[in-house]
Amino acid sequence: MRAPDVADLVARLREGQPRAVARLISLVEDESPVLREVSAALAPLVGRAHVVGLTGSPGVGKSTSTAALVTALRARGKRVGVLAVDPTSPFTGGALLGDRIRMGDHATDDGVYIRSMASRGHLGGLSWAAPHALRVLDAAGCDVVLVETVGVGQSEVEVAGLADTTLVLLAPGMGDGIQAAKAGILEVGDVFVVNKADRDGAQSTRRELRSMVAMAERPEGAWKPPIVLTVASRGEGIDDVVTEIDRHRAHQEASGDLRRRRLARTRREIEAVAVHELRERFGHVGADARLDDLAADVLAGDQDPFAAADVLLDVVQ
Amino acid sequence: MRAPDVADLVARLREGQPRAVARLISLVEDESPVLREVSAALAPLVGRAHVVGLTGSPGVGKSTSTAALVTALRARGKRVGVLAVDPTSPFTGGALLGDRIRMGDHATDDGVYIRSMASRGHLGGLSWAAPHALRVLDAAGCDVVLVETVGVGQSEVEVAGLADTTLVLLAPGMGDGIQAAKAGILEVGDVFVVNKADRDGAQSTRRELRSMVAMAERPEGAWKPPIVLTVASRGEGIDDVVTEIDRHRAHQEASGDLRRRRLARTRREIEAVAVHELRERFGHVGADARLDDLAADVLAGDQDPFAAADVLLDVVQ
Repeated sequence: MRAPDVADLVARLREGQPRAVARLISLVEDESPVLREVSAALAPLVGRAHVVGLTGSPGVGKSTSTAALVTALRARGKRVGVLAVDPTSPFTGGALLGDRIRMGDHATDDGVYIRSMASRGHLGGLSWAAPHALRVLDAAGCDVVLVETVGVGQSEVEVAGLADTTLVLLAPGMGDGIQAAKAGILEVGDVFVVNKADRDGAQSTRRELRSMVAMAERPEGAWKPPIVLTVASRGEGIDDVVTEIDRHRAHQEASGDLRRRRLARTRREIEAVAVHELRERFGHVGADARLDDLAADVLAGDQDPFAAADVLLDVVQ
Repeated sequence: MRAPDVADLVARLREGQPRAVARLISLVEDESPVLREVSAALAPLVGRAHVVGLTGSPGVGKSTSTAALVTALRARGKRVGVLAVDPTSPFTGGALLGDRIRMGDHATDDGVYIRSMASRGHLGGLSWAAPHALRVLDAAGCDVVLVETVGVGQSEVEVAGLADTTLVLLAPGMGDGIQAAKAGILEVGDVFVVNKADRDGAQSTRRELRSMVAMAERPEGAWKPPIVLTVASRGEGIDDVVTEIDRHRAHQEASGDLRRRRLARTRREIEAVAVHELRERFGHVGADARLDDLAADVLAGDQDPFAAADVLLDVVQ
């Protein structure tokens, strides 16, 4: 395959061409040899997009809420990016993509970019590829990038690490109060959204959340997460969600939290790239053969993993 | 706190004392300063345990199956370790631990060790702490270690990476055929278990699995995953599962797959330790301040993450 013309792609990205956005994210995902060149070219173009993470247990309506938020933000004239890193998201399966908002085919609305990403496969998972994809969407001129992920395991903490504002979605009658607390997703919420609020139990879910928010200790002047009731399938309450996102953004800017959060995010991003670089070196001829020998030694009981790791680090440095 | 006497702990571990097992796993989880010493002391003692991973969507009965397997293996006189890394496991919540098989209180049966681990929190998650906990259980003389994890996101692939034999559990009537395929857990199964086989749809789930197994391409003589029907809550079919685990083990030994799989696992373990060591260095004075500066540069658009990572790697080496 012909080597991609990065300068040309980035020029077209700046014009907002969907194909350039798609191609550049693919280069990131595939860990193209031009990834460094891409990253360098994007550096001066990023930092504008407000990153909004959506997380919650399967079944709470994350994808429907994402779609409703896209509609609401477009109505306000915002350019919107969507990064779906939820392995169970219909964005991935193509259902919503086909029916509602499809990147590429979306010729009549060049203000929306949607991209689903596998949350598995790459070393380091979400933490490795997603920040780079975010930078592409940011450089494409998105005002807001919505990152949707499933609230199980590590991903909800990772999405909170990526986001300027994290929405935690719950639905009544799923025993979510307990479930969510267990998975630790309540701690990362900047805005709580009780979706499917037309169902029984919405008020009690709100009460549970309210007392939990009230009990949490926070310094004076710190952000207190609001609770919004929505019926995303009918678009109800979505404007309130957008309002709370804007309010959170303004609070973060005034308090300096936005910069602090972004600095922490960027630190982790640099770390992740450095760790990735190191893993690449492990795979190089020489280090790779040495790693085989070391593994055989550990398996034989002649060496332990820590001593072996020291040897490996000496080899690649 | 007094520094732990590693030599004494390991001596008591070799006698199979549950408290020594528990303490050593805690030292691993807490990343104690004596972790290297522990690892070195365990090196000559490991390699005996057969590691069996259990994975599957929430609700398929993983914990009940784990408990039933413990009973069946104990009846065969095997020493058994259980590592529950499923964040939704009742082992973690304490329900099953309290009701059925509890480590420590299990004074009448010193042949079972049960330990639940958080799947989050540590850098690198499961991949970092679990292999070291496995080595502790192995050194304690366990013939079999069962590793239970939830089949969502990355964990099912990670558990397959840890295990000599991976059991993939499904249950009828959950749309699991599709769900499981989506999450990619079918690819990692050495033995498929259709649990709750007294429910409607068990036969059709088996048929689905059978045609999927039949369609998969595999080299001649390669292991063909069997399908076992169980009702774990009544212990039905559990003996068949144990038989298939033994058969898989024998096949792996004869084919050399066991050694190949363990070498690959050990390679990853050494890599994970090396990466962990590197991250520790990032946190040291000097590198830490430099990382702050680099993050600020990236945030300002003066630097990109790849160039920043190069600088960081130079600093810590």
